[in-house]
Amino acid sequence: MKHLTEEIWMEIPKRRGIVSLQAEVERLVKASRVREGMVLINAMHITASVFINDNESGLHADYERWLESLVPFHPGTEPETGGYLHNRTGEDNADAHHKRQIMGREVVIAITQGKLHLGPWEHIFYYEFDGNRRKRVLVKIIGD
Amino acid sequence: MKHLTEEIWMEIPKRRGIVSLQAEVERLVKASRVREGMVLINAMHITASVFINDNESGLHADYERWLESLVPFHPGTEPETGGYLHNRTGEDNADAHHKRQIMGREVVIAITQGKLHLGPWEHIFYYEFDGNRRKRVLVKIIGD
Amino acid sequence: MKHLTEEIWMEIPKRRGIVSLQAEVERLVKASRVREGMVLINAMHITASVFINDNESGLHADYERWLESLVPFHPGTEPETGGYLHNRTGEDNADAHHKRQIMGREVVIAITQGKLHLGPWEHIFYYEFDGNRRKRVLVKIIGD
Repeated sequence: MKHLTEEIWMEIPKRRGIVSLQAEVERLVKASRVREGMVLINAMHITASVFINDNESGLHADYERWLESLVPFHPGTEPETGGYLHNRTGEDNADAHHKRQIMGREVVIAITQGKLHLGPWEHIFYYEFDGNRRKRVLVKIIGD
Repeated sequence: MKHLTEEIWMEIPKRRGIVSLQAEVERLVKASRVREGMVLINAMHITASVFINDNESGLHADYERWLESLVPFHPGTEPETGGYLHNRTGEDNADAHHKRQIMGREVVIAITQGKLHLGPWEHIFYYEFDGNRRKRVLVKIIGD
Repeated sequence: MKHLTEEIWMEIPKRRGIVSLQAEVERLVKASRVREGMVLINAMHITASVFINDNESGLHADYERWLESLVPFHPGTEPETGGYLHNRTGEDNADAHHKRQIMGREVVIAITQGKLHLGPWEHIFYYEFDGNRRKRVLVKIIGD
């Protein structure tokens, strides 16, 4: 069994942002020389997601608005006024820990005949919910 | 390492619908002759999900109602009136791209002693959020 | 290819609860002697989740409140009054089948150099949404 492991460092220069991982994952699949297998791509931080959806800026703006409506950013610590108990730790990122559950931690993609086996519009993204600092995405490939 | 790859084509003759994938995945696991491994099952389209939950029609109707309440279908393009920026591309399926994030793109299931290793009520489904056209589900099996 | 399969039995003595799986999964990865591979950890029941997020009790209480706001427990069967069609089966756990979709069925984690390859704050949890009975979590490890 072949394998390849790589941590991709990134820093989003604002609180939230969506960044394509597609080219980098394609490069790593090629480098692994795996012909048949699977690749796992996951955020290594619990205030970020990896997801697969459309490469379309309007949709990404819709996600922003939607996630904010489901779980608003609020630096407060009192549930009665819309705050989060988690923020009593001194953080202000409780909303980010919730948003990442909606969008997901990881994706697993098949590798077939040496290539990512994706549908025509599937595109791999990193979603940062609490940026302005360096974070990592893990790519793990196994197969033959 | 053994492997098996198959794309399952399907066409749901309406906008939304839930279809069992269980028998087809069981058949493919058997055909793969993998005794110990994993199977990945994912929608190849970004307006559909693969998920595991109860094979019970009342629950499926509850999901329909719930997802519609979290992210309503709306062909409009103006956020102020409940529409989506994504629909400015000429599509009317922005809600579908959101619903699929709640229900998930993929499932990974263990194969043990040649069989799908599922709990007693676990059942594999495809969830179409923008149908009336042909789409694909990918099944990828790896193991020994 | 090496492999290891284990079902972990658990009983949460109330309707809902969050329990760490970290030590047990670490133990199994070590026992598997896999150096490079993947581990799948999934709830075998459709009213429970496995997820990775912060080991912080305030956040867990926030999740409880948030999930209840998105999909309230309601033993009723009439949608018009906030109930669920699924509860016509005689169950009262329709909300649990929804909550598990938000939090997810499974996680897949890389194994690198014989260890779980997790970020600094990633912690593996079981989330019970309909407890007071024995349930299982599956751990499946494959690799070399």
